[in-house]
Amino acid sequence: MNALRVTDGRVLRPDGRVTESDVLVDRDAGTIVAVGEETGGDETISSDPADDETLDADGGLVIPGLVNAHTHVAMTLLRGYADDKPLDPWLREDIWPAEAELTPDDIEVGAELGVLEMIRSGTTAFADMYFAMDRVADVVDRAGVRARLGHGVVTVGKDDADARADVEESLAVAKELDGAANGRIRTAFMPHSLTTVGEEYLREGVAEAREADVPVHLHANETTDEVAPIVDERGERPIAYAEDLGALGPDDFFAHGVHLDGSEIDRLADAGTAIVHCPASNMKLASGMAPVQRLREAGVTVALGTDGAASNNDLDVFDEMRDAAMLGKLAADDASAVPAEAVVEMATAGGADALGFPGGRIEPGAAADFAVVDLDAPHLTPVHDPVSHLAYAARGSDVRHTVCDGEVLMRDREVLTLDVDAVRERAADAASDLVDRVTES
Amino acid sequence: MNALRVTDGRVLRPDGRVTESDVLVDRDAGTIVAVGEETGGDETISSDPADDETLDADGGLVIPGLVNAHTHVAMTLLRGYADDKPLDPWLREDIWPAEAELTPDDIEVGAELGVLEMIRSGTTAFADMYFAMDRVADVVDRAGVRARLGHGVVTVGKDDADARADVEESLAVAKELDGAANGRIRTAFMPHSLTTVGEEYLREGVAEAREADVPVHLHANETTDEVAPIVDERGERPIAYAEDLGALGPDDFFAHGVHLDGSEIDRLADAGTAIVHCPASNMKLASGMAPVQRLREAGVTVALGTDGAASNNDLDVFDEMRDAAMLGKLAADDASAVPAEAVVEMATAGGADALGFPGGRIEPGAAADFAVVDLDAPHLTPVHDPVSHLAYAARGSDVRHTVCDGEVLMRDREVLTLDVDAVRERAADAASDLVDRVTES
Repeated sequence: MNALRVTDGRVLRPDGRVTESDVLVDRDAGTIVAVGEETGGDETISSDPADDETLDADGGLVIPGLVNAHTHVAMTLLRGYADDKPLDPWLREDIWPAEAELTPDDIEVGAELGVLEMIRSGTTAFADMYFAMDRVADVVDRAGVRARLGHGVVTVGKDDADARADVEESLAVAKELDGAANGRIRTAFMPHSLTTVGEEYLREGVAEAREADVPVHLHANETTDEVAPIVDERGERPIAYAEDLGALGPDDFFAHGVHLDGSEIDRLADAGTAIVHCPASNMKLASGMAPVQRLREAGVTVALGTDGAASNNDLDVFDEMRDAAMLGKLAADDASAVPAEAVVEMATAGGADALGFPGGRIEPGAAADFAVVDLDAPHLTPVHDPVSHLAYAARGSDVRHTVCDGEVLMRDREVLTLDVDAVRERAADAASDLVDRVTES
Repeated sequence: MNALRVTDGRVLRPDGRVTESDVLVDRDAGTIVAVGEETGGDETISSDPADDETLDADGGLVIPGLVNAHTHVAMTLLRGYADDKPLDPWLREDIWPAEAELTPDDIEVGAELGVLEMIRSGTTAFADMYFAMDRVADVVDRAGVRARLGHGVVTVGKDDADARADVEESLAVAKELDGAANGRIRTAFMPHSLTTVGEEYLREGVAEAREADVPVHLHANETTDEVAPIVDERGERPIAYAEDLGALGPDDFFAHGVHLDGSEIDRLADAGTAIVHCPASNMKLASGMAPVQRLREAGVTVALGTDGAASNNDLDVFDEMRDAAMLGKLAADDASAVPAEAVVEMATAGGADALGFPGGRIEPGAAADFAVVDLDAPHLTPVHDPVSHLAYAARGSDVRHTVCDGEVLMRDREVLTLDVDAVRERAADAASDLVDRVTES
């Protein structure tokens, strides 16, 4: 077996225990074959540790790779470009005019920057809704991470031909890229939201997505401004509308879910549709507080997402864990709500389940997607409870190693699949040129 | 002149501009003598740059030292010790029993750990309410930072003799330590809150603090449970009660201010009393959302505080800036509220003003308290707006150098005044022993 052995680590197990265990990985299969004491004893997996490539955890915490279940990764080029504005004018006055100038080359560069940032902060999988997705797929392939990709559809303001072309593009991307990068790339049909895509396009697109067996990902119930028109025009809440469209299935996952009523939470739970909670974006755009505790109590799968870097402004899922725990308490008016172990679960198993990926847990048979967090830092001293540290005190820069699909993507903070300096330089140049073009247009 | 020259930096000026300037420091006086083009030209300050000690900013952002205006620094030993509980049971069941076992040695070790963490994240000044303050003062002296220190008074549950002794201890500490560490240590009389200290003790203590010319620092309006009894018993709101006690002066500063009504905001503004906003603690304990935008509009000085590490769980003021900007938007239901420049101002000039310290601004004549933030990282690329990055994307680990009172405390991430490994080891041991004692008792 072509083995990778993680030594001297403390492993966060699926049941919440932390054990001093080795982790043995079959690199060819990209899976974890053993955890703990059994790694040395089972002849079928590895007879001689000396033959294995090793990754020294040096006492660090081995955790499932974090999952960023909703982002627009190339928006890293717009990090800090426009802040402190409400969603609607922010989109219309700043973001959409800038996005109109983005070239496929820009998107590739922005995706490289975002994926680099995610690898450096222990994220091994993400979901991306954007444009020029073949270029994003190329970056995912080269960088070695896992992603569920889709072309974002908007039909408002377009004539019928353009609207249909946008839907077709999203479906074509979903069909063509699915399974790429040795299976690390999966896809989804991605209408932007239930208000920015017209009903007939939603209905036809979802039907075709079902035939092609790809899930649906969209923004749902993000702001009150998005809920009210649906209620006014249709006499039903957005999640009921989604169900009516056939878009509320067990493989589908919706971003935000801020303004949900009890009936909608029940519908999501019954359907098995996941919600991707984006606490930083919801705070920064003053969208509101998602009912995370109620969603979890109802049995809805909840994942975490950074949203785009323009409304966050980073892609560090450690921040999302902390924000989710803190905002969840405020939303529930209960300091015991959304505890540390809940947000760690949301960022790992919840994310993998929402995206339909095989990782999210450190156990034999699971995908070998994990990160090693260095706890030897003043801000992580003492260690009364490592899970508390993951939620409340650790940050992306505490990640020492990142592994996805059995391959080491970052070792001792050196990213092996992307050139940090080159990516940063290309991204800075692309962002500068972009601003020039927006100013001129 | 014994000069320190910061070269190749981008300097955040008091008016919000960022200029490519050198900063020249008189190390003996501990003050900034020149910023920008004038540093090379003014014969009275430095005729030959070759004679100056230099600190290479390497393109980084030179910002005023961050101010952590409310903490209980030795609570670093309780970081992650008890999470996800409401304030009252958290204090009674977890924190107070643990604090009862803390020795002066523990407090010194916990303070070392906290001050180390603050230096590493660009914080040069803090306010501390705790016990064994002579030991905290010793750490502040050795570490080279600035602090306003006070012994926290609680009289509920104590007999009159013990209550009086506690008040006397706080006043004695305030008088004896004021001006220590070459003036870097200032003090305050610190009753814990208006509900945990009886009226006669508050009245007598505040009167004596006024005579000794030391300010008052206390927790105010943190939870609804703290406001209601005062309103019920006195028929007036807490800030009116504080005014009646003589505790609402221009040098006084109150922590939290979550549940304030319009009349209280006006009183604070009229009196010139500052509020120290602690957004992470307020979220983690589900205390509520402070009206930060309204406070600022009313002209109240607003500073930022981490509160103790047990309710945060770190002492990184970068986190507080991000949390304050985000929570401030949610509280105001307005994404344009509490913008990036506001939280940077709160963490620097606001903090210095609240604590009565001479720093907070990079300008000639100001205290030479500053930090250099390295912007050469993927999560800070591109740089459309460095102030946005300070508020939304940077973290403590991006700080390269920290300077206080003209002395370099951290150079190229190496802390010069404390031994990182020794402090971490002592703190881990002390925390472990503490847990053993609490378990046995």
